[in-house]
Parts: sequence; C-alpha cells; structure tokens
Amino acid sequence: MSANWGNNIELSLFGESHGKAIGIVIGNLPAGVALDMDEIRWQMKRRAPGQNKMSTPRVEKDEVQIMSGLLDGVTTGAPLCAMIENSDQHSKDYSLLKECMRPGHSDYPAYVKYHGYNDVRGGGHFSGRLTAPIVFAGSVAKQILRQKGIIVGAHIQSIKDVYDDSFGVDITCEDLQQLTKQQYPTLNSDVFLKMQNVIEDARMKQDSVGGTIECAIINVPAGLGNPFFDSIESHLSPLLFSIPAVKSVSFGMGEKMSELYGHEANDCYYYEGEKVKTKTNHNGGITGGISNGMPIVFKVAIKPTPSISQVQSTINVKTKENTKLEITGRHDPCIVPRAVVVVESMAAIGILDMMKDI
Amino acid sequence: MSANWGNNIELSLFGESHGKAIGIVIGNLPAGVALDMDEIRWQMKRRAPGQNKMSTPRVEKDEVQIMSGLLDGVTTGAPLCAMIENSDQHSKDYSLLKECMRPGHSDYPAYVKYHGYNDVRGGGHFSGRLTAPIVFAGSVAKQILRQKGIIVGAHIQSIKDVYDDSFGVDITCEDLQQLTKQQYPTLNSDVFLKMQNVIEDARMKQDSVGGTIECAIINVPAGLGNPFFDSIESHLSPLLFSIPAVKSVSFGMGEKMSELYGHEANDCYYYEGEKVKTKTNHNGGITGGISNGMPIVFKVAIKPTPSISQVQSTINVKTKENTKLEITGRHDPCIVPRAVVVVESMAAIGILDMMKDI
Amino acid sequence: MSANWGNNIELSLFGESHGKAIGIVIGNLPAGVALDMDEIRWQMKRRAPGQNKMSTPRVEKDEVQIMSGLLDGVTTGAPLCAMIENSDQHSKDYSLLKECMRPGHSDYPAYVKYHGYNDVRGGGHFSGRLTAPIVFAGSVAKQILRQKGIIVGAHIQSIKDVYDDSFGVDITCEDLQQLTKQQYPTLNSDVFLKMQNVIEDARMKQDSVGGTIECAIINVPAGLGNPFFDSIESHLSPLLFSIPAVKSVSFGMGEKMSELYGHEANDCYYYEGEKVKTKTNHNGGITGGISNGMPIVFKVAIKPTPSISQVQSTINVKTKENTKLEITGRHDPCIVPRAVVVVESMAAIGILDMMKDI
Amino acid sequence: MSANWGNNIELSLFGESHGKAIGIVIGNLPAGVALDMDEIRWQMKRRAPGQNKMSTPRVEKDEVQIMSGLLDGVTTGAPLCAMIENSDQHSKDYSLLKECMRPGHSDYPAYVKYHGYNDVRGGGHFSGRLTAPIVFAGSVAKQILRQKGIIVGAHIQSIKDVYDDSFGVDITCEDLQQLTKQQYPTLNSDVFLKMQNVIEDARMKQDSVGGTIECAIINVPAGLGNPFFDSIESHLSPLLFSIPAVKSVSFGMGEKMSELYGHEANDCYYYEGEKVKTKTNHNGGITGGISNGMPIVFKVAIKPTPSISQVQSTINVKTKENTKLEITGRHDPCIVPRAVVVVESMAAIGILDMMKDI
Repeated sequence: MSANWGNNIELSLFGESHGKAIGIVIGNLPAGVALDMDEIRWQMKRRAPGQNKMSTPRVEKDEVQIMSGLLDGVTTGAPLCAMIENSDQHSKDYSLLKECMRPGHSDYPAYVKYHGYNDVRGGGHFSGRLTAPIVFAGSVAKQILRQKGIIVGAHIQSIKDVYDDSFGVDITCEDLQQLTKQQYPTLNSDVFLKMQNVIEDARMKQDSVGGTIECAIINVPAGLGNPFFDSIESHLSPLLFSIPAVKSVSFGMGEKMSELYGHEANDCYYYEGEKVKTKTNHNGGITGGISNGMPIVFKVAIKPTPSISQVQSTINVKTKENTKLEITGRHDPCIVPRAVVVVESMAAIGILDMMKDI
Repeated sequence: MSANWGNNIELSLFGESHGKAIGIVIGNLPAGVALDMDEIRWQMKRRAPGQNKMSTPRVEKDEVQIMSGLLDGVTTGAPLCAMIENSDQHSKDYSLLKECMRPGHSDYPAYVKYHGYNDVRGGGHFSGRLTAPIVFAGSVAKQILRQKGIIVGAHIQSIKDVYDDSFGVDITCEDLQQLTKQQYPTLNSDVFLKMQNVIEDARMKQDSVGGTIECAIINVPAGLGNPFFDSIESHLSPLLFSIPAVKSVSFGMGEKMSELYGHEANDCYYYEGEKVKTKTNHNGGITGGISNGMPIVFKVAIKPTPSISQVQSTINVKTKENTKLEITGRHDPCIVPRAVVVVESMAAIGILDMMKDI
Repeated sequence: MSANWGNNIELSLFGESHGKAIGIVIGNLPAGVALDMDEIRWQMKRRAPGQNKMSTPRVEKDEVQIMSGLLDGVTTGAPLCAMIENSDQHSKDYSLLKECMRPGHSDYPAYVKYHGYNDVRGGGHFSGRLTAPIVFAGSVAKQILRQKGIIVGAHIQSIKDVYDDSFGVDITCEDLQQLTKQQYPTLNSDVFLKMQNVIEDARMKQDSVGGTIECAIINVPAGLGNPFFDSIESHLSPLLFSIPAVKSVSFGMGEKMSELYGHEANDCYYYEGEKVKTKTNHNGGITGGISNGMPIVFKVAIKPTPSISQVQSTINVKTKENTKLEITGRHDPCIVPRAVVVVESMAAIGILDMMKDI
Repeated sequence: MSANWGNNIELSLFGESHGKAIGIVIGNLPAGVALDMDEIRWQMKRRAPGQNKMSTPRVEKDEVQIMSGLLDGVTTGAPLCAMIENSDQHSKDYSLLKECMRPGHSDYPAYVKYHGYNDVRGGGHFSGRLTAPIVFAGSVAKQILRQKGIIVGAHIQSIKDVYDDSFGVDITCEDLQQLTKQQYPTLNSDVFLKMQNVIEDARMKQDSVGGTIECAIINVPAGLGNPFFDSIESHLSPLLFSIPAVKSVSFGMGEKMSELYGHEANDCYYYEGEKVKTKTNHNGGITGGISNGMPIVFKVAIKPTPSISQVQSTINVKTKENTKLEITGRHDPCIVPRAVVVVESMAAIGILDMMKDI
C-alpha cells in the first residue's frame, strides 16, 4: 500500500504540490467525536512555512476544508475528507527539473518509476507539503487519544551537532503539553539559541542542516502491540519513514543500546502502589513488541534538506550527459522545527490504529 | 497483521519455543523454482546455536521439513510450508517465570496482553528461535532474487563499542558473497578478535552485549518502491523491527546523516557509460522512498541479550510484590553473530515482496 | 477495510449525499495513461439520475473535478483524486428520519453503529449517490483494460419477472460495446418495452421494483486469479456486494448450476487453432478460482428500491414506540438501469486490481 | 491475498492433497480460550469422507495435530497451527492428468498459472480436502462465538431440483443446533429421502449432482459491519466463494428479492418489548451492509462435482490436440452434505473476524 494505510483507521493521502489540492481521507473513525477545529488549525500552523526566517518564506495558508464526515462539528462515522487547495503556486518554468535530477531528491527514482510522467513542479506528490494533511489526521488522532488520557509530544533532540537533553524516565503529560507551546520545542531552554545559529549559518552558506526529533507517547496501557510483524515498532516505523527525509527510526535508547551491557540495558520492574513501573526506560516502553505501560519513546533522524543553492554536479536524463545544477527558489535551510508536529502526528495515528476499542 | 505479513508474497509464522513445532507458510511464491535445499540448510546453520562458545550451548538441530508447496524439489506455486519440530526441550520447571517478570524480556507485556495464558517456556512465541523459519523463508527469497542478479549480504558493524568499517560506495556482489562465508563476517578482518574478547568478557561476567549489523542489497533496479506509506524504508523497517531485540533501523548513513551539511549529504549523480551512479551513497540507495539503482544499505542495532545470570530486581505479578530474580539456564552472551543471517533474510523477503514481476 | 480497498490499485471512497462533496482517491495507477475525459463523463452520465421518467427527477450534475494525479490529461502515477461537489441539495427537514427508521434502508443499523451521529440527509454516506465516484474509477479502469484488449459490458437481465436472454458462449467485444450505447441495454430488443411497463406500473402504485444485471469481461487471459481467498470470485464479490441493494452475486450459470448433472455442468475444452476454448461457459470463465480464458460472466440481483411512498409500519427510536411512516420526496421506482454501469465499473476495478503488470 | 486472509483474526491455509500434510495457521485468536477438542473432532467428522455410500469411499482420518498456540487445552494467544498428515494417498500414475485437462476442474487454469509445475495429484492445493483445516478453524471460531451467544447453523436447501423449506423469520438457536445433529440436515424431515434418491441415481449413472445450502447466524448484535467495501456481504462472500464449487452467494431472499415489489421486500421494524425486530427477514439481517439484529441468512449454490466417470472430450496440452478423457478413481457423486459444515465454518470465521472485541 502506498497511498492507503491502516488496519483499523484508514488513511488515503493525495495531492501534488502544484496541483489543484492536497488532502487526506480518514476512514473508520469513531462517530460522535466533537472535533476542536481551532486546535487542529493551530497544530497545522505549527507545521506551516513562512513563520520566521528559519523556514521558507513561502506563505501556504493551509486552509483546510472538510469535505465529508463531519456534521455540526461532530464526526459522523463516514470517511473524514480534508482538503487544502493549492494557491501560492509560482508558475515558473519547471522544464529544467524534468531533465536535471536534483541530488538527494526523489527526482531520479521517480523519473524511472513513472517514466517521466510524474509532476515535478514543487516536488509534486513527493513534496513535504503533503505532510500538511498528515498533520490534520494526526491532530484528529491526538484529540481522540487525549480522551483516553494518552498524550503525544516531541522535542528537537538535535540540529546538526547541537544536542538537547533526552526525555527522562519520569517525563509527564504536562511536560509534553508544555513542549507543544514552544515555537522551537527543546527540553533545555538554552540550546535552541545554538541551534538557531547553526541553521542561520547554514542559510548564509546556501547550505542546509538536519537533526533529530525525540517523541514520547504517555499513558499507553500495557499490553498494546504484538510480537513480530505488528510489534509497536513495526507498526510505527513505516509511518515515521513515510515522513520525507527521515533516515533513521529508533526506540528507547536506540543505537546506543548496542553499546550497553545487558545489566545496564534491562529496565527493572517495580510496583509503585498497584502500578507497574520500570526504574529506567531504555527500551522505550516496548519489550517483545508490546507496550509495558511506560512512556513509548522513539527518535527519528532527518537529513539536511536536499534543496541547496550551491552548484552541484548531476545528470541530464534527456541528453544523457553529466552536468551542473544550481537550484533557485525558496528553501528551508532546516525543516526539523516544522517536522516536530509531523512526527507527533504519525505517532498519534499509529497508536490510535493499534487500539481496537476506538 | 501480527503473524501474517506481505503484499505480494505472504508469510505466516507460527510456533512456540517448547511447543510441538515452529514453522512458516510462504504463499504466492512463483511456481517452478528449483530450491537448493543444501544452501538453505547451510543458511539455517549460520543462525543455529551451539556452534561455538560464543553462543548458547543448546543444540537445536533445526531440521526443516517441507510440508507442502514443493514437488521433486521444485515449487508448485501452492503455499510452501516449512516446519521444524522442537526436540531439545528441557522439561524444567517454568512456574517461576509465570510469576517473576524478567527485565528486558516480553514477559510482563505478554502477561498483560494474554492474561497470563501465554506459553512462557523458553520464551514461547517470543523466542529468538522463531527466527529459524524466518531464515528458511529468507533463504528461499535470496535464491529467487539471485536469479534476477540481486544479492543480499551483511556484516557485523559493531559488538558493544568495537566497530568494524562500513560498506563503501563501491561494494560488490563478490564482497557480499565473501562475507557469508565468514563465520563472523566483518569487513576488517582484524576486528573480530576484539569483538570476540568483548563477548567472552561479558560471558565471564554473567552479562551480555549487543551490537549492530549493516546490510546491503545490490542490483535492485532503480524505480522500486513508493512515496509515503510504502517507501522502501517503510516496507523493510517493520520486518527488521520484527527481529527480536532490534531497537533501531537506519538507512544509508542513518543518524549520522543528521550531522552533515546538505552539500555533504546529497549524493551527486553521474553517468558511467549508460549506467547512472552516485559518487557517494549516503542515502543508502533510496531517495523519496524509491530505489535509485545504488546498493540499498541499512543498519540495525541489537540490544544486549536480556537473559543474564546476574541477580536483578523485578516484580512478582502473583504476589504483587517487588522481588529479586536470578535467571538460570543456557544463554547467548551475544546474539549479534547469529542475527546476521536473520537480517539478510528479512531484507530479502522485503525486497522480493516489492517486486511485482516475481 | 471499509472506505479503502485494493491489493494493487487502491481506492478510497468518501462523501455524504448532502455534505460538501463526494469523491474517490485511486492510488497506484500506472503513470502515463492519457485519460479520455469525454468518455468518462459519458460513462458517468449513464449512471446519472434525471434523464427520463423512469429515474428520479433529481438533477445531479455530477461534474467531476480532478484534484490530483493528472497533468495535461495524463496520469502522473500519484493518487488520482476525483471530487464531485454536492449542489442540488434540498434543505428540507430531516429530523423525522433521525427518529423513524425507514424499512429496507440502512437507517436502523447505522443508527446503532454510529450512535445516532450519522448524517441521515439523503442517506448520508449510504446514498446510492456514492456510486458516482465508483463509476469514475471504473471508467478509468476500463480505459486501462481496453489498452490490453479487455472489454467489460453488461445488460439488464431482468426487471421484476420480465427476463432478457443470457449472454451466449460466443459473446464478442462488439456485442458488449453495442450494449453500452443503448440507454437500456438488453440483448433482446423487444424486452425493454415490457420492462418499462413494469417500472411505470410500479411508479403509479407508489411502489418499486428490482431486477438483475448480467456482466461479461472478455479477453481476460487464462491464469489470472488464485485458489481460495483470492479467487476471482472472492476478489470481485466484495466489490459487487458494495453496490447498495445488491443481494446476490453469482458466476456463470450461478444458482441454476446446482440443478444440473455434472455432465451438463462441465465445460469441455477444445482447441480452435492454437486457442483453448470451452464448448459451453457454465462456469463463467473461472474454474478453481482462476480464469480459463473464456469470458468471465457473472450476475447480480438488485432488490427493489426501499424508498417507496406507501405508508409503512416501523419504529421510532426516540420514543421507543411502534409507528407509521410515509416517505415523501423524489425516488427511483427502479434503479436497475442506472446500476448497469456501476456493475461494469466494479468489474473493471476488480479485474484491473488482479493484474500485476499494470 | 491468496493463502492468507483476515483483518482481525488471521488465517493461512497450506497443503496439497497428496503432499506431506495440509493445515492452517490461525493468528490473533484471543488467549485463554479452552478449546473443546472433542467437539472440533466431531465437527471435522461431519465433513470427512467415507461415512456412507453417498460420499467417496476414501478414508481420510483427518486426525488433527496442534503444532502451536495451545497449552494444556487453552489458547496461548500465539498463532494456532493445526496440521493433518496425508496418509491415505494412492501412488497411482498421475501423468495423464498433467496432460489431459479435466473439464470443470482447475486443471487448465492452474496449468497456465503455474506453468505446469502445480501438484496435480488428487487435485493438489485445489483439492476439496483443503476444507478440512477450514472446518478446524471454523470450529474454533464457533466456540468463541458461542461464548457471546452467537450460533451458526445450516441445512441443505436443495439437491439438484429437490428443495427443502427455507429458514423462517423466527428461526431459533435450538433449531440450528438440532440441525447439526442430523447427518443430512434438512428442515423438512421428509425431503432427504428424495435427495438421497437423486444422489444415488446420479452415482448409478456415473454422474454427479449439486445443490444449495442455507446458513443462519443468530444473535449477531445490530451495528456490525460497514457500508461499501467491508459490508457484511462483502466480508463473508470471499470466504464463501473460497469453498471449491461454490458458484453463487446470496443474502436473505437473494435473487428472488429482484422479483418482489418494494412494499413486499422491505422488512418492517417493530418493538417486541425493548428488542427491535422485523416482521419479515427478506434482507437476511443486513441492510446497508450492517447487521440489524435479525438472523443473518445467506445461501450458497454448489455445482455438481466435476469428477465424473463418463467419457468427456477435452484437450491434451502436451500434444496440443483435442482428445477424450475417462476419469477413474473414487468420487463423490454429491459433495453438498459434506459441505454444510464448511459453509458454517466460513460464516463463523467471517463473523468472528468482524468483531473487534474478541
């Protein structure tokens, strides 16, 4: 499945950056959920470009229209279709991009796969703009999860080589909700200034930088998930790798886990009253593919935006010759801050889909 | 889907460590494939325990029986069912494990999910032993892929903090095939002795260590994969996270990608004759979720075996009290060497499933 | 899966009769297909109401807008989203329908399933109007199939107890294409007048009638399909039962097959030159779930429209009392003629989805 | 999906008639279900051949072995694998069947699909013998459904042109359970003698006959199912069409519905105390794809066994010539009585899969 996803809820993502509209259909949502559209719009604004000098100056209004599935603000149980019309499209000449493959982008693989018929304007269906409907869906999922006490939140873990702290074992819902209120969510409030400098520095060099995002999901009851092909990790990772530019997904301590001794890596259980907890949370709330009741914690790594203004060497698939390419236009020197809410959204969608009793 | 998997080929995994048998059903394989059973047995031996002091002294014969789908050594097109009877089971008393939850294991989440009815003997369905039928399926997949010129291979990238080199941009099929002939495949032949020392040291301390495995798939044609929910990363990662103890999956340079500048991370295209190549392969052969023709390269991180003989603190779910647990029995101080062929197998299964023309 | 469907191509259906819009997303279509939009509009017109006195006088323009996946009239390979805005909605009072459950409709089951939150206006998501986007998708599928020489066509087999002939074993593509040009496609040209009389008679009595539709798919190569869960019958039947009011799906001679002797039912093979044919086609081109190269023939039975103006007894779920209901408004006394193209569409979608090489 | 099936529970069917074994894997069953193996064996005996002169004299012991998922007679939550070894295989010469395609069988389509590599001995994977593991799975499903008060039962509706009565609107669980105790379940006790005569008559003529089976599922709560692609009809029909020889599936009155007026076809609701009922049940307990709380009733038509001893004309795919074929061996003149429990099993599996709260 490529455009469609889900075992329980059902997603269908559509649209191209400079086509008529982008959007998403969300099937199998419970009926009777009163959606807080103001909050949804606010979540979508967290992703929207043009809010400061660190992101692209494009102004995408991202005004979402509900085409179906909502009546008087309440879900009807029928598929919820949200659509965002594309308006701020520049009708510039894209013919060069049909021939000269931008390094690090989908251009060449897509050219081969679609025999040159793919819409290359603004990245077409591969555009990061497609994450706007994802954030819509994620915001809906978050509202439903919140009614069950489940809270999703994330922070920027690093920009290039500037690192924030990691979530502690005692992370709370309040901590997560506080993070969503920060324009650049970090646990250590000092670190973002350094991050900003790194990003600004990259912009001045016509270059770009990447980073990592750490996300936590609190209050997932123990016993959710499965062994093997539908472990929580197996269920969430395809969603996370669907986010353009994500090159790594890790749970708990992730790769660092491989450098520990067993006695360090194991999270020891204890009773706190009747509640089962672990003293550490190196496994990120999941063992054997199933939740243990501790916060589910994971991290994604995002590569630097491939769109840079520096001259790069590449190929021209029409002339079949090696060539040089200079990409012009409006680019984010770093998409990590805008990707935080996208990561949260995928996490919320994935967890909601695993809950049979929604 | 938990036990079943696949869009194109279809897997169904069954069995418990101390049940009657473990096995796998593989549906939708092409008819007319002459399976090299000797090679399959050899691949399965790469995973089997008891071969040296670094792995568990259990002797699992892993003798695979074909129950269906093969006639005169050739696939019939009907589901191929392979079964391995469990023979070397110790009938020791497992009652303690029903009450005392081993840290780092699936015990507690499984206890909650299955209301205490799960088979805890030897880890039950969560046992690493279930990877034996996975290797069977992977070996079949490799043979089919090889007929198309596609080769899968892997090496131990690290054991604890001892690191091997990484695959270079010019890795060849011969390199990969050479690796499979090494009992402990590493690129740098000196490094395994250090790795052995780390493992042996852990064993002496009644502890365990983890590591990482890097895998490459060569000759996947450009244009395989999809944007978003069925990107190559999204397709392979659930399989890789199905391997017990895998906590991280990354493609290309993975997390390190997040520390590069865009001009460093982008892989620049060039023509070598008619063939399109990239000068570097930081993206691991995939951009926009689709293959670009370069080797697909990924890495998984494996946590240290949670079974250690040291005393650990945990809970007793029957008495609802905190307690201490000392696990006896035969354990691998490090499963990484045996996991190499499991990782290769999942990669082969995942890529084969994405090819429509099998 | 409820709103989403497909193994190979991917459908996602959305919309409610009196919501903002209805539509469909079609994923995994091949890139580079030049769509004949005039033909698509003509196919959609075959389904549209308001064309004569036998169907509802509602004028639904069904003007389809392409939101994504098409560039310069050619598919891009990205999901193709088609949308039809709802315009001819009467803002009449639907409060009675929220309480009084119409017999034969989805009202009561939907009331229970959606806890009363479903949109009841015009039938909401259950409206036959949702078949308009299905016809869009089916028309696209037909165009792709036609490039492979595969032709789909159907005729009205019966209206109430007035029966047309059945397809013969030697049905041709030309026959099928001729049928699509008839406003009321029947094989026996005399029979439709009788059918018209039955429908007109039902209208005068404020009643409704049903009927059956027989469909053929010609030139499906032998060897398509699977045994068991993905037999051609198993693949097509869920699509056909998705058409509102279909209560029976049968292949070949269908139920009548159960009254034959084996020697009558078996279709005997013979070579006509190099081509394999059968002397009869009682099995409708499918044995063992797989096509044998003969026309695939099936039949669906459609119940009489449940919307009738006669007084009916029912329940009021608010007052919890038995009551009487008189449905007013514009109703089709018979939807069978309009359903012909819907049946063809589902057949085309189902067959296209089974072809790996699209 | 061909060998695998299910949204919620997961089936994987394997085996060939004369291979080593046939079997099924059932994933995602609830843990903690104590299986009544005696009842399962009895249900399987209802399907087994060799019990009287009306079925094939083959003695298939169908002794089921549980390979995984059951501990001390209780489900563990891990995949339940049941296997039946093939023992009563005649090692006769099957070379003729590799060349001469039996009319009405899967031989020719399978020959094309599998390029001649399919196992033709005893029908291979297409053998009706594969329904034995289906009955195992269905028996498990029935036991779980029964704990929720849901009962499944069926009767022979017709053999050739001898018809039994149909289920009435007031069918009870007791009625259904009574039927399972009859070796040849019919509502009208007189009718089976006539049916027996028809079957015996066919045997004497070296011919075969088919028939129909009507099935009811009682106490399915209102609100189960979905509109469109996952309607109850869409969910059950692929399972029913997976049963070899089924050519028609209809719900409620089925095809006869198409001959009624709307005022006759509509099932009028009324309150009986607090319970909602309908006066008639022409819609078979389903409107809009969703259950209304009345018994779910459907019918399947089964074609006459294609294996007949009469000489038939066919093709030889090796010599590419038309030829004559005389099939020898042990054949059922009528499989309908043995298929009753198979139909019940598929119904139970399908309904269980739709219930999220299992």
